[in-house]
Amino acid sequence: MSVLIDEARAALANGHLAHLVTLNPDGTPQVTIVWVGLEGDEIVSGHLGMRQKLANVRRDPRVALSLVTGGRDPTGLDEYLVVHGTARITEGGAPELLQRLAEVYIGPGVKFPPIEDPPPGYVLHITPTRVGGVGPWARLPGS
Amino acid sequence: MSVLIDEARAALANGHLAHLVTLNPDGTPQVTIVWVGLEGDEIVSGHLGMRQKLANVRRDPRVALSLVTGGRDPTGLDEYLVVHGTARITEGGAPELLQRLAEVYIGPGVKFPPIEDPPPGYVLHITPTRVGGVGPWARLPGS
Repeated sequence: MSVLIDEARAALANGHLAHLVTLNPDGTPQVTIVWVGLEGDEIVSGHLGMRQKLANVRRDPRVALSLVTGGRDPTGLDEYLVVHGTARITEGGAPELLQRLAEVYIGPGVKFPPIEDPPPGYVLHITPTRVGGVGPWARLPGS
Repeated sequence: MSVLIDEARAALANGHLAHLVTLNPDGTPQVTIVWVGLEGDEIVSGHLGMRQKLANVRRDPRVALSLVTGGRDPTGLDEYLVVHGTARITEGGAPELLQRLAEVYIGPGVKFPPIEDPPPGYVLHITPTRVGGVGPWARLPGS
């Protein structure tokens, strides 16, 4: 069973920018902002090139991502979701995934990536193992 | 000389929620959302208790933080700032700093923390060593 309750799944599918943390060779955190979506119980993001974050994942699959989700808790603090997990990379499919996510993150009818013949790229798949943050998902045991 | 150009300083002082990454004992990233401000060339945040992130910093001072800053670059991507740095902790001063930041993050006149006699807490001070992301700060050499 996934650690993602319905509210967490909604937060991951509704166009909130995700701060993705991977681990550099020296152990320091690497942070980039990515668009995310869901495929079954995995969180997915699309990448046209093999950048530092993907090289990091190949070496160490432990990642975290965090999103500010727009609500406020009863004490006035902004709600946010943190997902810890392990990531894997598959080749190809990035343009199609980015096109699907662009319609959520930018708007219906947009063409993305805005180039002809984009490379097949890579898809990052994250299996969530633990969630935290401030919000309904933080009431889960172990979060 | 600080690695923070004026646009980065503005982004850090204008009430954008910061995703703070510290390193757990097993090397995995720990992420929390914090309010930040500037004191000279340091980025500061206030903490009423000694939580996991502060314990992490005491063991390993390497941190990163990232903020979505509201603008979009010419290709339509959301601008964001990533700061890598080293952190140190001082004791006391958290309620006063949180009160100052609450007026930026919540609004003028708010009382924060919303409790009587808050503990003195801790202040986290981050010295930036490298910046990145998408935005004017990313044009800096080495970013």
